[in-house]
Parts: sequence; C-alpha cells; structure tokens
Amino acid sequence: MRMVDLIEKKRDGEALSREEIRFIIDGYVQGGIPDYQMSAWAMAVYFRGMTLEETAELTLMMAQSGDQLDLSILGRRFVDKHSTGGVGDKTTLLLGPMVAACGVPVAKMSGRGLGHTGGTIDKLSSVPGFKVELTQEEFLAQVKKIGLSVIAQTGNLVPADKKLYALRDVTATVSSIPLIASSVMSKKIAAGAQGIVLDVKYGSGAFMKTVEEARVLARTMVDIGNKLGRQTIAVLSNMSQPLGRAVGNSLEILEVADALQGKGPDDLMEVSLELGAWMLVAGEVVADVETGKERLSQSLESGAAWYRFLAFLTEQGGDAQAVAERRLRVSPWNLPILAQDTGYVQPYDAHKIGILAMTLGAGRVTKESSIDLGAGVVLAKKAGEWVEAGEPILQLYSSDKNMLAEGLQLAQNLVSVGSEAPELPPLIEEVIQ
Amino acid sequence: MRMVDLIEKKRDGEALSREEIRFIIDGYVQGGIPDYQMSAWAMAVYFRGMTLEETAELTLMMAQSGDQLDLSILGRRFVDKHSTGGVGDKTTLLLGPMVAACGVPVAKMSGRGLGHTGGTIDKLSSVPGFKVELTQEEFLAQVKKIGLSVIAQTGNLVPADKKLYALRDVTATVSSIPLIASSVMSKKIAAGAQGIVLDVKYGSGAFMKTVEEARVLARTMVDIGNKLGRQTIAVLSNMSQPLGRAVGNSLEILEVADALQGKGPDDLMEVSLELGAWMLVAGEVVADVETGKERLSQSLESGAAWYRFLAFLTEQGGDAQAVAERRLRVSPWNLPILAQDTGYVQPYDAHKIGILAMTLGAGRVTKESSIDLGAGVVLAKKAGEWVEAGEPILQLYSSDKNMLAEGLQLAQNLVSVGSEAPELPPLIEEVIQ
Repeated sequence: MRMVDLIEKKRDGEALSREEIRFIIDGYVQGGIPDYQMSAWAMAVYFRGMTLEETAELTLMMAQSGDQLDLSILGRRFVDKHSTGGVGDKTTLLLGPMVAACGVPVAKMSGRGLGHTGGTIDKLSSVPGFKVELTQEEFLAQVKKIGLSVIAQTGNLVPADKKLYALRDVTATVSSIPLIASSVMSKKIAAGAQGIVLDVKYGSGAFMKTVEEARVLARTMVDIGNKLGRQTIAVLSNMSQPLGRAVGNSLEILEVADALQGKGPDDLMEVSLELGAWMLVAGEVVADVETGKERLSQSLESGAAWYRFLAFLTEQGGDAQAVAERRLRVSPWNLPILAQDTGYVQPYDAHKIGILAMTLGAGRVTKESSIDLGAGVVLAKKAGEWVEAGEPILQLYSSDKNMLAEGLQLAQNLVSVGSEAPELPPLIEEVIQ
Repeated sequence: MRMVDLIEKKRDGEALSREEIRFIIDGYVQGGIPDYQMSAWAMAVYFRGMTLEETAELTLMMAQSGDQLDLSILGRRFVDKHSTGGVGDKTTLLLGPMVAACGVPVAKMSGRGLGHTGGTIDKLSSVPGFKVELTQEEFLAQVKKIGLSVIAQTGNLVPADKKLYALRDVTATVSSIPLIASSVMSKKIAAGAQGIVLDVKYGSGAFMKTVEEARVLARTMVDIGNKLGRQTIAVLSNMSQPLGRAVGNSLEILEVADALQGKGPDDLMEVSLELGAWMLVAGEVVADVETGKERLSQSLESGAAWYRFLAFLTEQGGDAQAVAERRLRVSPWNLPILAQDTGYVQPYDAHKIGILAMTLGAGRVTKESSIDLGAGVVLAKKAGEWVEAGEPILQLYSSDKNMLAEGLQLAQNLVSVGSEAPELPPLIEEVIQ
C-alpha cells in the first residue's frame, strides 16, 4: 500500500477501506507517512468528505493510537460530555457536581482555551492550589471516591489526533466535518465513555456559524458514536450570545459558585439542565430527560451539588474556601461601559465578546501564550434586559492598562440600546440522538 | 503574510495576488515554507484551479527562482520546443537538425524518461561517447557554431519547479492543469526562449487521455506564454498509437537516422514537419507554416539535415560513424510476435506498448532505475497495415531472458488482426496559438 495512492483515491472521491485508514493512521503516528502527505490527504478530505463508515473507522483508529482508559474500576456506567466551545461556556463546571450528586460519575479530561473560546482547565487554574494534572491512578481514585474529577488531557491519549490537529491548524484543513467529528469522538472513546453527551454550539461565538453546519456535525458525531457502540446524544445550542454573564477564568468560577448556590443566570441554567439531564439518561439513573431535570434541580436546592463542587476543588488541592468566600483574584484594572441611552440592551456578538476578553488578557492568541486568569468581561446587562442611560452595561477587567485601553476601544462598538426588546433565538434548538 | 492564510484563500476559491504567489515560491525555495504547507496548497489548487493571471505569475516566479539563460549571444531569435511526452516520440531528435539546417538555432535542455514515455536524453545516451552534460559555455558555444545542442537539464535552473514537482509526485497533485502548465512553461522561460512550440499529445499513450483535457492544457500554456511576451504555439497531436515504428532508446536513434535520410515513417514525418514548420515561423525565417514545411523537406532532400545531425553527434563526442553504419548496440535477446491471421493490423494501445518497452528494460520504473538502452519494441506492422498470417507484427528486444518472457506475455494481448481496415484518428487535431 502506498500513501500517494490513498491520497489519489480520496482526491478522486472514493471511500477508503478500514485497512487503508489503519495504514494511514498507523503510518502517520509511527512516522512512516510524512506530514506533507498527510496534509495533502487532509485537504482532499476537506473537499471530498468521508462516508460515515470511513469517519467511524478513522475515529476508532485514532482512539486506538495511544493509551485508552479503562473505567470499569468505577463499577458504574460512565458518561462523558463535550462542548464544541463557546464564549462564557462554563457548563462543564456546573454540570460536573450536579451530575455527580445525582449518581453518575464524571471523569473528565479537558482542554485549555484557544482564541476567543475559553477552556475548562484554564478556569480551574484560577482556583489557588488547584492541580490540573493528576496521575491516572489519582484521577480514577478521586472519581471512585467523590464521583468527580476534571484534569488536563495528559500523556499518550490519542497521539494521532494531537499530531494531526497540529498539522491541520497550519494547513487550513481544520474546518472539515469528518475531521472535526473524528477528532472529538476519538478522545471521548479513548477516555472510556459508554455514554457521550455533546453540546454542539452554533452562532457567532461558536466554531460552527450556522445551525445547518452544527446539525451536520452533530449528526456525524452521534452516528459515529452509535456506530462504535456508545450511546451518543447531541444538544444543538445557540451561541450567538455569551452564556451567562461572566467571560474570563476566575470570573467564570465565581459565576459557577453562584449558580451552584441557586443564583445562576437563566440561560446558563437552561443549557446545563438540558445537558445534565441527558447525562443522567445516558448514565441510566433516570428514564427520561424531564425526570433528569427534576433530579438536577433537587441537587441544587438541597445543596448537594454545591457541596460536591467544594469537595471536588478540595480533593484536587484547590482552595475551596477562597471560592466560597469569593476571594479569587480578579484583575485590578477595571472599567464599566455605561449605557448611552435608556432602553433594551440589543444582542451582543458573542464572537466579539470573546475577542474582547482575549484582548483584556483572558485568552490565548497562540498555544504558547500565557493568560491573565483574573481578566475578562462581565455582562452587567444581558441582551433584552432594560437599562437606564448611565448604568453600566459591561464591566472590563485587566491587569494591563494598555490592554484595558485597547479593550475599551473594542467595547464601545459592542453595545447598543434600543427602544424595542430584541427577539432572541431559542437557546436549545434541537436534540439529536 | 502567513502561508496558512494563503492556503485557506486558495481553498476557498479566491485568486492569489502577485505578491502572495511570490511569497509562496520564494518561501518554498528558501525553506521558510515547509513541504506540508506546500502540499496542502497544491491540493487546494488541484480542486480550485488558478486564473490565467495566477498561473502566469506562478510560471514567472518559478522561472526566476534560479539561473536563467541569456541566449542573446546567439544573435538570433531562439525558439524552444517541448513535447508533453509520448510513446516512440523522437521528434526532438529529428526536428533539431532539420530546423537548425533551416537557420533557426536549437539549444535544448531535455529530460530523462520516466514510466511508459521515453526521454530524449536517454535516447542520445545510446550513441557511444555522446556527452549529455556540457557546461553552459560549451553548450552555447556549440549552438553558436553548428546551431544545435541538446543536453540534460542541469544546474540551478528552475529549482522551485524541481522541488515542487518532487512533492507533487508523492502527494497526488501532479494532474492539475495550472501546475502542469506552469511547470512546463517556467522551464522554457528560464531557458531563454523567445518562441515556444508545444507538442501537446493526447490519447492512451499520453499524459492527457482526452483531446478536451489536452486542449485546456494547450490553451493554458499558450496563454501563459503570450502573457509573458513569448510567442507560443501548441500543436495538439494524437498519441493513441506510438509515433513511428521504434520504441526504445537505440532503436529510436536508428529510426531517426533513417528518417533524416528520407526513410521515415509517415506519422513521424507528419508530426515533425508540422512542429518544425511552426518553429521556423516562430523563428521568423518563414512567413507561414506551408513555406516552413517546404523548407524542412528541402533540408531532408539535400542531406543538410542529416549532415547537421552527424555534426551535432560529433560535436558532443558521439560516434556519428556508428549511427551512420547502424552499429548501435541492440539487446541480444529478441523475438518476433507473429500474426495469427491475415488481415489489417488493428490499432495498438500506445500506453500498453510503452509499458511493454518498459517491461523489456527500455524505461525507468522510478527515477533511480537504470535502463537497458538496447531494449525495446519495433512495430514491424503499424495499425492499418496488411499482414499475412505468420508474418512478424512486433519485434521485442531485451538483454534479460526473464524480461523478454514477461514482455512476450504482455505482447500476446497487444496485437490483433481483423478483416476491416481500422479508422485511425487524424494525427494533428488542431493548432492553438
């Protein structure tokens, strides 16, 4: 078998066989297939796509390219959750304790943020002392003990995806549905999930700009998961507005703490309850999503979810007390953006809010950038809320005066107030399973 | 400027500017742009194509990527000729002396053969003592002296094409019209041609299988040439049948010697006269192609072309006497394929004849392969000729008994005799200028 022939086959729109896909992934990971052939192949995939069979095979080969977690030690059905990324998306942190409190273990490996979207690991890093890296043994022991651990992706998990993603990033081959879908799903499968709940976001703040694109991606991932014997459910959720009020790492942890104590913003709660309920369904502790939502609400009302969160922070070395007392470090330079008029706040552009937070220091421009964990934006008023002229709409935080000045420039063009209440799209568009 | 953005731009079907193409070619030759980005870009070009402006810019940037010949020393308008390659295509060797004898200098750098098509340099290498490598000074001095030199491509001519072609070869990005056209034309332009005559072949033995593809390639190359200020003419010629009777290196030299002495096969003469006449037109020694053909025929009748060929071989160290006396080495193992029936020889498949010659040892499988200069096939009968049962149709030559046995197998399925004279397509389809 020669790689050049397989590139040609894909270039000409033919489907590759299981053996051919295995040859490509094995060869690439082991170094026999050079980057320059892999990138040409990826570009051919970009134009020609892949069948479901091909995409599922690719997913499985990538999942098997490195270590695979065995979570049978938990003695429970294990459900994983993944979000395609958005602005202010802190659902994992909210869901983890809620779902764990309802009896479904959460053992999650998460990524760092890049570009205008934040990463769960960065958010947790803003809690003093919190360890984002555990050994596999520590990780599993903690899940067994308190039903919840979240760590950074480590070790030799899905090396094929790591290598291929880095290549796609510099060869304009990221935005291909089968490549995105297999990248996401290979990680979930290598991480040992029996059930997978996907939060597929669309809108300006998401990777997928339209609901149609998001639907195709969701359908592809669900089909892959089901084909590979994992119960998979995708929730299509709108990301034209930031989720919740806080965008930025420590700011979002504080919002999660509020939410777990019953003071969460409506949109964040709605998405989290929907995703969490599906996790309970997939975890086979409830029969339907409505019952799931009730159970999750009870976990909030009883304080069970909040206590589980504090236990989780503590177990991983974090200063839970600081979180409870809202003593997380927030960047010292801050400035409100005031409403010029009285009226209804018009919709934000989530992507621009993400860029604003990044400009203030909250996000990474490149993988190597360091970030300011205390920087970010708080939406004092969300879209559709009433504001009086002179009241703050946004609050900006930064540790750097120049960044703050730059953010101020951006922020001015980001807010508008009108006499009509804007119509906002439904937050949950559709559930695909 | 970042290469990833230019890949994306091309991927999305946009045209690149002159500066962007310069950035790509300069970066690639100097090493700042890695192979894996270049191959992704080439695949995007495969799918999206390039405008004429882009293709012409690419051609020029590649031509300027290394040395460029200055042929003003010749004091004459210099015309180059290029064939897209075929089976039994020895027109360069026939044309060179004819055109030179008519007063247009021929200073040609040629390639070696690969796959089922032969290369002029390999053919010349079968003449004892012939030097295919000359210094640039020797090369030009010889052209100035006798109006004719043919050497192997040397030195630092069009390094961008050399590097890009090697990459395309292993990434399934060879068969892209703008990339083929710019590769061919960049070499002609770096070699200093003021006029360019292209023999664009189509049919089973050619790279372009259909006349439509060939027409698009021809049109593209002619447009590039004209846009860059070079008078360019393309002759579309049929390559469903091998050209002439001989396929194989020394066998073809012997056929050229015959042809220069007035005993050439009709098809070879027709194509050579057409191409040569256009070279005389482009060289501004005749006003029209009919006059050109007359002048070339006179050069054959007077012996001027034949003498020029012998002088050319002698100047480059070759044993002209051996050629004149037909003493070139032909492979010792030979075998005729006999007609099973009496009737008209049906059309050959030129591609299969090429493969047969390669199997007998006459061609290279990879760039590193060595070849048997005396091996090959002679078509004792060409398509449409009458043959009696038991007469030889093909004659196979090889230095290796196993190769001969393998060739014999192939050859059996290559010949057929029928009661109807086959209809053969016209040899010259069209002239594009």
